[in-house]
Formats: sequence, C-alpha cells, structure tokens
Amino acid sequence: MTFQAYDDGTPADVKNATGLHLVTESTPNGQKVQIFLEELADVYGTTWTTTLIDTATNEQKKDWFLRLNPNGRIPILIDNTQSPPFPVMETSAELIYLLKLDKDHHFGFEDEREQSELLQWLFFWHGSGAPYQGNLGFFRRAQEQSTFAINRFRKETYRVFGVLELHLSGKYTGQPKEFLAGNGRGKFSVADIGTWAWVKNWRGSGYTDEEMAQYPHLLKWVGKVAERPAVQRGIGEKYKLVEGAQIGSIGSLRTLDKV
Amino acid sequence: MTFQAYDDGTPADVKNATGLHLVTESTPNGQKVQIFLEELADVYGTTWTTTLIDTATNEQKKDWFLRLNPNGRIPILIDNTQSPPFPVMETSAELIYLLKLDKDHHFGFEDEREQSELLQWLFFWHGSGAPYQGNLGFFRRAQEQSTFAINRFRKETYRVFGVLELHLSGKYTGQPKEFLAGNGRGKFSVADIGTWAWVKNWRGSGYTDEEMAQYPHLLKWVGKVAERPAVQRGIGEKYKLVEGAQIGSIGSLRTLDKV
Repeated sequence: MTFQAYDDGTPADVKNATGLHLVTESTPNGQKVQIFLEELADVYGTTWTTTLIDTATNEQKKDWFLRLNPNGRIPILIDNTQSPPFPVMETSAELIYLLKLDKDHHFGFEDEREQSELLQWLFFWHGSGAPYQGNLGFFRRAQEQSTFAINRFRKETYRVFGVLELHLSGKYTGQPKEFLAGNGRGKFSVADIGTWAWVKNWRGSGYTDEEMAQYPHLLKWVGKVAERPAVQRGIGEKYKLVEGAQIGSIGSLRTLDKV
Repeated sequence: MTFQAYDDGTPADVKNATGLHLVTESTPNGQKVQIFLEELADVYGTTWTTTLIDTATNEQKKDWFLRLNPNGRIPILIDNTQSPPFPVMETSAELIYLLKLDKDHHFGFEDEREQSELLQWLFFWHGSGAPYQGNLGFFRRAQEQSTFAINRFRKETYRVFGVLELHLSGKYTGQPKEFLAGNGRGKFSVADIGTWAWVKNWRGSGYTDEEMAQYPHLLKWVGKVAERPAVQRGIGEKYKLVEGAQIGSIGSLRTLDKV
C-alpha cells in the first residue's frame, strides 16, 4: 500500500498544493522554516504556499496532520513535486531538506568539515537550546508554579546561551566568529537560522539586559541576523494569523501564496 | 590562528591518538556512538581508540574538554586523520559524520527521501525524546521532588514513545515498519541507534509492563535491535569504567584500544 499523504480531513489548501507547502504557525519553530524559505526566495526565486494553523485549537493533533507528522507538531513541510507527496517533519530536518535547493551553497557548505559544523550547531540547538528555552516558557506560564523547575530551565537556558557566546567569542581559537559554522569568521547558514529564531526571544524568556551583557558576541550576532530582509519577512506580519480572517477551508487555517 | 584541538591539560591518551578517538561514558548518549563504531567495525573493520570519562567528576567541564566541545557534554568524537584534528560534538552529528565511512550504505541511505527520513527521526529523538526522557530522569532523581515536573516529563516521554509506536505500527500507511527509516518495512540505520540507546531504558524510566504493552510494535523493535552483536558490545562491559582501574593519564580516565 502506498503512503497517502492526504485524507478526507485534509484541508483543501493543503491537499491542492502543487509545489512546496508549509503548514506553520509563527512560533520560533515555525519561523525557522519561514525564514529559510524567504532567504531562498531572495537568492533563487523559490516559491511555495503556506497554511497558517492555530495550535491552540489542537488542529495539529487531528488525523490529517498526524498522517503528515505523527509527532503532531508544527511546522510540517510537504514537497508535492515528489510522488507521493513527501512530508518532512522536525524543523532542522526541514532546513536540511531545503538545502538541496541551495545549489550554490549560500546557506550551507560544500566542504565536509564545515558542513559537519553546521550539523553540530543545528543539533546542539535542536537538542539543548530549544528544549531548555521551551521548557522555561512552559514552566513560567504554567498555572502551577514550580520554582525548582523554573530555576532549572532558567539556569540551563542561560548556560546554553553561554555555550554560544564561548563559541562566537573565539576563546579557544583566537578567532571570534560572526556566524556559528564555517571556517574563519564563519558564514551565515541554516545553523544560524535554527538557533536565532529562539535566542532572539531572550527578553521574552525573562533575561535582563544585565544578564545578557555577559554575552556581547551573542548579542552582536542576534542583531546581525535580525538585519537580514528575509529574516524580517520570515517573522513578520505575513505569517501572523489574524483572528476572524480565516481564508482556509477549515477554522483556524489560512492559506497564503508566496507573491 | 589555527584551531588547537589540544592544550597542556589534554590527557595524553586523547592528545596522542592518531585516528578516530572517542571520549565517552556509557550513558545512552555515549552508547549511541559506541554502538555505531562497533557496527562499523563488523562491516568495515573500522578501528578507533576510546577514553572513558566519569562525568560525575566534571572532567567534561574542564578547559581541555570545552576546547573540543564548548557544551561540555559527552561523547566527543575526534578525527585525528584531519589536520588540525577535527572534533565533532552532538551525538547525532557524530553518527552522521561517521556515516561517511559507510561507503556501502549499510546504516544510511543513498536515496534522498529515505536519507531525509533518517534525519527526521534522528532529530525527532534528539529534540523530543532525549530531552523528555532525560528530564524525567533528572526530576525523578532530584532531591527536591516536583510532582508537577515529574508528571509532565513522564507524560511527554510516554507520548513520544507513542509517536514511535504510531509510526512503526503503520497506522497511516498500512505498512508496519521494522525500523524507523527507509522504504517498505524500513532498514536498520543510525536513526534506530540514536533512538534505541534511550528507549531501551524504559523500565529504568519508571514505565510498567502494562503501560508498555500499549506499544507492541515499539517493544518488538526494542528487542530486535537488542539482538545485534554490535549493539550488545556497544553497551557492554568494555565501556564500563571500573573504579580503581584508571589506565588513563589522569584520574577517572581510562583508555581502551579497539582490538
């Protein structure tokens, strides 16, 4: 039996997509892939369509979504140019999948070691940064306040910010870095995209200017990435779900076409 | 200034290694890479040396270690055939790095979509499974008992086990899978190694036989992977740090040579 990407419950906008389609919400995880698609558009004219979802409604736990991603998490990227349509789950795997469109290696590396560095930093953030910062948000917002848990994740998130600072400062290499991966001062890559979408929210995570002043290289990097036009578009109004403005076929869904 | 992998504090066994060298401890994360090296030895005769470390002594927070991995976590893989020696951090990035030795694609895929599946499941475990199961262990063992936190991570770990069950059961494809990635029933790959090293400890994480009976495909997969000789060696006696038997140049370090 062949895998069927879509079923009767799949929204028409998702089912009828013909090229790359992103089902997302403009959270840090959604923004990672939104940003990279915008970057690809600037360099290669890449096109795609987007369905915005409101995870507060648990749309991502429905059968049509679990068929695409059994983990029930946004964003999900579907490549409808493949037969059958090929769904890609996990933000960092989506970034790597999209790197195949980057024929000129603007956002990745030809060199095997530099590309390994990119993967190391992607996995570092995916497995340490995001879970710590994500759990910090969960426990800070939780109705039951566990000081023990909040302190753990506050401390660990600050620690992983410190790992990035250590790396960017060049303490062990004598070579400060502008970006996470690549020889010399490094090159902007999907490793930066995956990490930045979370770290940029440090203030929302409860850190003070005084605390972040300990990490000057990290702050400089946050600012530098933020200046990129594609990054600004990727976290911008275009991806904000406007209440009452649902254009999709079911509630809380809205489909956007890349202009 | 060229990156210097080693400094005055680097243990001699690490500094004098000439090929692949693994600094590890036989935890689930360490076991991932131990297992894959053993698998590669069976197929390709791959050789490497190993330094066992006792993370309870915080050896991994010392300068010599942070120079190799600023995150201060085991295992770290160093490729001394590169110049300068090339350190690889993050277990999943280490598995991917070692895949370049797998010329015949025994543990990875030539096909782009199958290889993407492998990455998706590696990232899934790296970013959801391991952090949840790891935090469950942390909060269960913590002196201050937060029922709220323990329950969260107990529930989430059980949920991600359920994601694996859903995938392996073939509910949406009509095709039950023996392994996580690959067409049809799938093929044993590094995605299984990365996931199995953690899931196999479900009993130690506090789940009961009754709870796990809900996940028959997952249990079958756990048993099938466990039967592999390289897997048994990768979690075996060889990697157990024997107290008082430190052969390395500093306390809590022991160097093993692959026979």
